[in-house]
Amino acid sequence: MVATPEPLASFAEIRALLAALPGPDLEAATAATLRDRQLTKPAGALGRLEELAIWVATWQARHPPVVRHPRTAVFAANHGITAQGVSAYPADVTAQMVQNFVAGGAAVNQLCQSVDADLRVYEMALDQPTGDFSIEPAMSEADCARAMAYGMMAIEPGLDLVALGEMGIGNTSSAAAICLALHGGGAADWVGPGTGVEGPRLQHKIDVVDRAVAFHRPALGDPFEVLRHVGGLELAAIAGAILAARLARVPVLLDGYVCTAAAAVLQAADKRALDHCIVAHCSSEPGHRRLLGLIGKEPLLDLGMRLGEASGATLAIAVVKAAVACHTGMATFAEASVSGKSA
Amino acid sequence: MVATPEPLASFAEIRALLAALPGPDLEAATAATLRDRQLTKPAGALGRLEELAIWVATWQARHPPVVRHPRTAVFAANHGITAQGVSAYPADVTAQMVQNFVAGGAAVNQLCQSVDADLRVYEMALDQPTGDFSIEPAMSEADCARAMAYGMMAIEPGLDLVALGEMGIGNTSSAAAICLALHGGGAADWVGPGTGVEGPRLQHKIDVVDRAVAFHRPALGDPFEVLRHVGGLELAAIAGAILAARLARVPVLLDGYVCTAAAAVLQAADKRALDHCIVAHCSSEPGHRRLLGLIGKEPLLDLGMRLGEASGATLAIAVVKAAVACHTGMATFAEASVSGKSA
Repeated sequence: MVATPEPLASFAEIRALLAALPGPDLEAATAATLRDRQLTKPAGALGRLEELAIWVATWQARHPPVVRHPRTAVFAANHGITAQGVSAYPADVTAQMVQNFVAGGAAVNQLCQSVDADLRVYEMALDQPTGDFSIEPAMSEADCARAMAYGMMAIEPGLDLVALGEMGIGNTSSAAAICLALHGGGAADWVGPGTGVEGPRLQHKIDVVDRAVAFHRPALGDPFEVLRHVGGLELAAIAGAILAARLARVPVLLDGYVCTAAAAVLQAADKRALDHCIVAHCSSEPGHRRLLGLIGKEPLLDLGMRLGEASGATLAIAVVKAAVACHTGMATFAEASVSGKSA
Repeated sequence: MVATPEPLASFAEIRALLAALPGPDLEAATAATLRDRQLTKPAGALGRLEELAIWVATWQARHPPVVRHPRTAVFAANHGITAQGVSAYPADVTAQMVQNFVAGGAAVNQLCQSVDADLRVYEMALDQPTGDFSIEPAMSEADCARAMAYGMMAIEPGLDLVALGEMGIGNTSSAAAICLALHGGGAADWVGPGTGVEGPRLQHKIDVVDRAVAFHRPALGDPFEVLRHVGGLELAAIAGAILAARLARVPVLLDGYVCTAAAAVLQAADKRALDHCIVAHCSSEPGHRRLLGLIGKEPLLDLGMRLGEASGATLAIAVVKAAVACHTGMATFAEASVSGKSA
């Protein structure tokens, strides 16, 4: 584990942070709403682009909103649960894909270039996978809190939007276990093919998640305990980055199933914790849509993507940029001498 | 009407063009499909981005596909039907919005800048609205064919993607009348608020469209007759641009309800006519989703937009660019030394 610059080493400290999160900036929200109404379009005609511009202003606490320095942060880690044969790809692929990110060959590299976002990849002790959560907790409290603190480092001064994502062979099993522990239902509601398991292997993955959550159940009364027992280092880092972004007034785009499952831990701990986050897309991993319904998030895009590595969140940066460009660049009815609606 | 460089002045000539449309380039399609399978991602994990890259290659007849010179073409015209009080805004707004486009103050200007597309606005005799289709045909055959030929001019050498859209107070009534004439149902299935009519004015709009289509019914056996009787100059221009794009191997992004209704005329005349077109987004104008189901097009985005002026189609350029960037820029499993799926 990389040394952390933050002293966070316990859930008590995380809870203290959570309790002190800033709320929406109502002045910026009002200014954005008032400007939106004057722009040369029928009211509401830009649909979610209008909402997005107001959302960016609200959580940047700034009007006009600005998206000039977006970052995509991808956290990569390994998972002991892969010993149970839950993934279609070998665990080595996590490190190989990190090399692919570094070399510029992955989807997220092309997407960052396409939307002009800064890409940072955070490699989290790939040679030290978490514990196999089918037989032991994935992490100690200290390791989990430190991973959250590490994730906070992705939010640096000057950023105005962040897209979060992950890479970790085995982590859709963690996501499914977190969702099952937080939101109930059966394991089959939450387990999907991930990178591509099917048939008997998919049933095996369901059984592994089902048994693991049952095994840890007595310890799962608290959302952060859920995260440390069945989560992963990269999921903890995502949760930390979400908190740091809120403190730094940086709106967040969440990627697919694994990323949203990590975020759902925070929402279970404090229902306002994700108000500065938008879910960028609906993954074709079936648990994602179910989770989105339960946490009350409407995804921005629905393109059948299920790659992870912040690919959907990065693509959505283009939509947020477009929304902010319309909001800030359009003329008002008065400026353009365009007639208003007839009586 | 601007003088056209093309000799098209009859539907017979348009039909001859339609019969000679080139089909998909199977060599480029195959090359794109084969490359897609080798890229460092699980098969299918980029969802519609994969389809989009293959679609661009197929209709550009080129592999690798390229999107370096996209254009947004907006056709603007006026409509005699506005005399019937079908719009929430006065007809003057068409010309005022064209001035807004020229001055750079409209949504489409910001969107073009955001996705780095060239914007062209085609003003079609705004001082000469079409006939009021509640009492007479909107256009003569010659005017309609010339408007189609004018639209063809938007497709110039060097373009590699085109987003089509329109501006014309009153034109959602034309779109609804076209859909009703081509696809049946009741006028209420096809008429929506447009720029914002509601309550008794919406019912009035429904009645106007219903009576107009009944009035012209005997003449509406042919799709091009539908276009000339109840369409508009900008709708005819869009249909022309779609044909020209097919001939020039330029893939097309269609905007919302009005643009898709214009395209539907071509599909009714030849079911293959829109194979090189993708519908960029689902408009919140309710007839659009119904029309998309009937013509078999799945929209790319669904953001509650209903502005027209090619706004949704222009935004979708960002998605197509991202798809092509992934397809062309990603490493293959072999190049990146990433392990494949386990047996």
